[in-house]
Amino acid sequence: MVDRLEDPRELSLRFNRANSVGIVRKQIAQFDTPLQLVSGGTLDSFTLAYETYGTLNEDRTNAILICHALSGDSHVAGYYTDDPTEQPGWWDEAIGPNKMFDTNRFFVICSNVIGGCQGSTGPSSPAPDGRPYAMRFPVVTIADMVQAQRHLMDSLGIDYLFAVAGGSMGGMQALQWSMDYPDRVRSVLFLAATPRSSAQNIAFNEIGRQAIYADPNWQNGDYYGKLRPTSGLAVARMVGHITYMSEYSLEEKFGRRLQALDRLSYSFSTEFAVESYLRHQGEKFVQRFDPNTYLYITKALDYYDASSGHPSLTAALSHVKAEFLVISFSSDWLYTAAQARDLVHALPGRSVEYHHVEAFFGHDSFLVEVETMTDLVGGYLDRLYERTLSPRASSLTA
Amino acid sequence: MVDRLEDPRELSLRFNRANSVGIVRKQIAQFDTPLQLVSGGTLDSFTLAYETYGTLNEDRTNAILICHALSGDSHVAGYYTDDPTEQPGWWDEAIGPNKMFDTNRFFVICSNVIGGCQGSTGPSSPAPDGRPYAMRFPVVTIADMVQAQRHLMDSLGIDYLFAVAGGSMGGMQALQWSMDYPDRVRSVLFLAATPRSSAQNIAFNEIGRQAIYADPNWQNGDYYGKLRPTSGLAVARMVGHITYMSEYSLEEKFGRRLQALDRLSYSFSTEFAVESYLRHQGEKFVQRFDPNTYLYITKALDYYDASSGHPSLTAALSHVKAEFLVISFSSDWLYTAAQARDLVHALPGRSVEYHHVEAFFGHDSFLVEVETMTDLVGGYLDRLYERTLSPRASSLTA
Repeated sequence: MVDRLEDPRELSLRFNRANSVGIVRKQIAQFDTPLQLVSGGTLDSFTLAYETYGTLNEDRTNAILICHALSGDSHVAGYYTDDPTEQPGWWDEAIGPNKMFDTNRFFVICSNVIGGCQGSTGPSSPAPDGRPYAMRFPVVTIADMVQAQRHLMDSLGIDYLFAVAGGSMGGMQALQWSMDYPDRVRSVLFLAATPRSSAQNIAFNEIGRQAIYADPNWQNGDYYGKLRPTSGLAVARMVGHITYMSEYSLEEKFGRRLQALDRLSYSFSTEFAVESYLRHQGEKFVQRFDPNTYLYITKALDYYDASSGHPSLTAALSHVKAEFLVISFSSDWLYTAAQARDLVHALPGRSVEYHHVEAFFGHDSFLVEVETMTDLVGGYLDRLYERTLSPRASSLTA
Repeated sequence: MVDRLEDPRELSLRFNRANSVGIVRKQIAQFDTPLQLVSGGTLDSFTLAYETYGTLNEDRTNAILICHALSGDSHVAGYYTDDPTEQPGWWDEAIGPNKMFDTNRFFVICSNVIGGCQGSTGPSSPAPDGRPYAMRFPVVTIADMVQAQRHLMDSLGIDYLFAVAGGSMGGMQALQWSMDYPDRVRSVLFLAATPRSSAQNIAFNEIGRQAIYADPNWQNGDYYGKLRPTSGLAVARMVGHITYMSEYSLEEKFGRRLQALDRLSYSFSTEFAVESYLRHQGEKFVQRFDPNTYLYITKALDYYDASSGHPSLTAALSHVKAEFLVISFSSDWLYTAAQARDLVHALPGRSVEYHHVEAFFGHDSFLVEVETMTDLVGGYLDRLYERTLSPRASSLTA
C-alpha cells in the first residue's frame, strides 16, 4: 500500500483536531437576483454554498475571502462531525487560531464557485424545468465566479474585504476581485497562480475534457440518474494530478518502487507504486466530483486572461487599488514563476510583495509548504493588520 | 486552420525529394528460431519489418542501426511511391546523401520493434492458433527488442555495427545493444533519451494506458475485427504529445490563438488552436497505430532501467566497449538533461562526447533541430569514420 499519509492532500490528518476551527457547518445562500454572465447567458437564480470561520468584527473590516481551486469546495477548514476518522477541510493547516489565516483576528469565508458541484449552482443542479442543467448550464468564467461571490458578500453585509486569497484558480479569482471591485478589496494574495492560462495550461485541460467526452457514459452530459462517466473523469484527474506534482516529488515519493511486489510481474496489473497512486487519485476523485463541473471549471480556467480586452496587463490593472502578495514556487511547472512574475511586472509602482519559494513539491507546494506559507502569508497579513486594523493603527490615525 | 506544415512531425514535407534516399521498400524478415523474452515468455517464431538505405561495404563494417521511438516504425527515410503528396519516413532529414547519417558512406538499417504494429510481430499479429495475440502477446522489454534486432543483423551478415543510434526509446535500445552485445557495437548515439524511466515517465505512460483501458471498445484487447478503442488511444496520444513539446513551443506556436473564430464562443466546441492541434494529433495517430501495441511499448519504456540487477549504472556498464555520443536538450522535460547526464557520469574514463543543446522544442528537438543535429551527429560520425574506416585510417593502421 502507498502510505496514504504521504499524500499531500491527506497530510492534514497528521494535524490535531485541537488546533482546528472545530466543527463547522456548510451554509447555503439563495439568490433570486439574476446573474448576468460574461458568456451572455443568465442564471435567473442561484445558490452558493459557503462556510465561515472566526468572527466578523463590529466594523465589518476583518473579512478574508478564500477562493478555491479546480477541485476544491467551500469546506476549507474544520470538520462536519465528531468522527475521529473524518478528514478536515482542504486547507485546514491554513485557517484557524494562530494559523496563516488567524481566526482569532480574521473572519474567513470560503464559497463553492458557481458551476461547482458541492452546493453551489452548477450543471448538476436542477434547471427551471426541474431537470438537471447538464450541458444546458451556461458557460461560466472566473469573473462570473467573482460576481456570484460579490452577491454573497452583499448578503453578509461585507462591503470591504481585508483580503481575497487563493492558490491556483483561487488566485485568479482573487486577482479578478481586485479588478472588478477595486473599492472593495484591500489586498490580494495570489499564490501559485497565473494571470493568463498558457497554451500548455489549455492543452492539459483539453486532454482532461477529451477523456470525459470519450467516456460513453458521458452521453453529452445527460448522465444524471444513470451511470456516470467515472472512467473518463478518473483519467482527467490523473492528467491533472501529474501537473500538480513535480518530477522531483514523484521521484522522491515513488521512484521505481514496486507496489506490493518483490519483483516485476511483467504484466498489465499495477506494478509500480506510482501507478497505484495515480489510480487511487482517480478513483477517489470520481466519488466526490461531478464530471460536467470538471468540464465547466476547466473551461473557466482556459478563458482566463486578465489582460483580455486591454492593450496590456498593466493597462488592465490600472484601476486596481489593492495591495498584492504574490508567491510562486520553483518546481511549479503548471503555473510557473514566469507567469506569476507577469503579474508582478504589470503592477509597477504599486505595493507588491513578491516571494519566489524554492520548493520541491511542484504546484502543490502552496498546500504542502505549510511552515513557509505560514511565515509568508501569516506575516504579510500580520503586518497589514498592524498597519490598518489594530488598536495601535487606530490610535496612530486617531 | 492550424498550418499543418508547422507540425514538427510534418516538417519534412518542406524538404525536397531530390535530397532523399528516394523510393524504398519495406522488407520482412521471418525468424523461425524462438525468441526467449526477459519476461519468461517465448515467441516461437517472429517477423521483423525493416528497411535499408545506402550500401553495405565489402568488409560489412559500415552498418548503422537506427532504433525508433514509441510511435515510430521501420520507415525512417524515403518514399514508397511516386505520389508527390506522400510523406517521407519519420526522420527523412537525417538519412540520405550528405545528411547526418550519410548514405554515401554508411549502410543504414531501421527495423520496427518487436511488439510493434508496422510489420513486426506484435499483439495484432496472428498467434499460433491463427487468431490475433491481443493481450496474450508476451510482455516485451527494450532488451527483447534488441535481441530481435540482433537476429536481423545475423541474417544480414552484419557482425559489427559502426553505430547504433536512436532518439527517445531508440536511445534506450542503442544503449542496450552496447550492454548485451559489447563486441558488436563500435558506437552508441544516445539522443534525448534516459538510461532509466523516472516515476514521472511511468506516470505519463500509465495515464495513456488508463485512457485505453477506459475505452469500452478495448474489450481487454480483443477488439480485432471489431470497433477499435480509438477514443482511448487518441487521449493517450494527446497525453504523450504534450510531453514531446515544451511550454515554450506550445506558446510560440499557439499561445491563446483562437481556431477559426474571431472571438470566444463560450461553448464546448474547439475554441483555441492548441485544442484543435491536439485533437488532430489524436485523430491522425489512431489511423496508423494499434492500441494494444501502445500498451506493450509503454510498458517496455516503464521497465527500462539500465542499472537493474547491478549495484550502480557504472557497474552495469563496466563491460561495455562502445564509444558514446550523448545529446540532451535544455527544454526536454520528458527525458531531461539530468537523466542523460546520469549515463554520461556512469561512463568515467570512457570515450564519451556529450552535448547539451539549448533548444526550444522540448523532447521533439532531436527531430526538429536538423541543422544542429547534422553538425553534432554527422560531425561525430565523420570523425569516427575518418579514425576507423576511411582509406586514410587503413593506411595509418596498415
